[in-house]
Amino acid sequence: MTKLSEKEINEKLESLEGWSYTDNTLQTSFEFENFKEAFTLMTRIAFEAEAQNHHPDWNNVYNQLEISLSTHDAGGVTEKDFKLAKAIEGIVNAE
Amino acid sequence: MTKLSEKEINEKLESLEGWSYTDNTLQTSFEFENFKEAFTLMTRIAFEAEAQNHHPDWNNVYNQLEISLSTHDAGGVTEKDFKLAKAIEGIVNAE
Repeated sequence: MTKLSEKEINEKLESLEGWSYTDNTLQTSFEFENFKEAFTLMTRIAFEAEAQNHHPDWNNVYNQLEISLSTHDAGGVTEKDFKLAKAIEGIVNAE
Repeated sequence: MTKLSEKEINEKLESLEGWSYTDNTLQTSFEFENFKEAFTLMTRIAFEAEAQNHHPDWNNVYNQLEISLSTHDAGGVTEKDFKLAKAIEGIVNAE
């Protein structure tokens, strides 16, 4: 997996909603109704991450979820991160 | 729920293993075998937190889990945080 250039990342970001490229990672945040809803979504995302063998850096406080994606081995953002971001978007929008 | 004094917190910390009082919160971290193990434990903790109606501030990256506990309404650490910390310790030690 090759690290994408800033130009490539910005182009690809146009196909996602609510994600930004910050601190060398793809970032987003969600606010759910309560903890149960937040953790329900986290569980769906966890299964998808495990299936892709690519995992998020995420922080949860009650109904808030912050997610950062990057590819450690490549030292930045790769296609793997966009694939997982797209899957997360699909999971959250399916609600 | 009343915010505990630093003296009370330090006394109570003696009954826990691997927790510290930092930045006005109770903190700990765990390292599991892999993501699946980490998220399995998070799920057990999530059910306990929901049952206690008291939720962690937590961050997960692959096999690492960092947890901070505090009681927002009290502006610091209360008995509620020690109750949840004790439950988390029980869940992790049951592995």
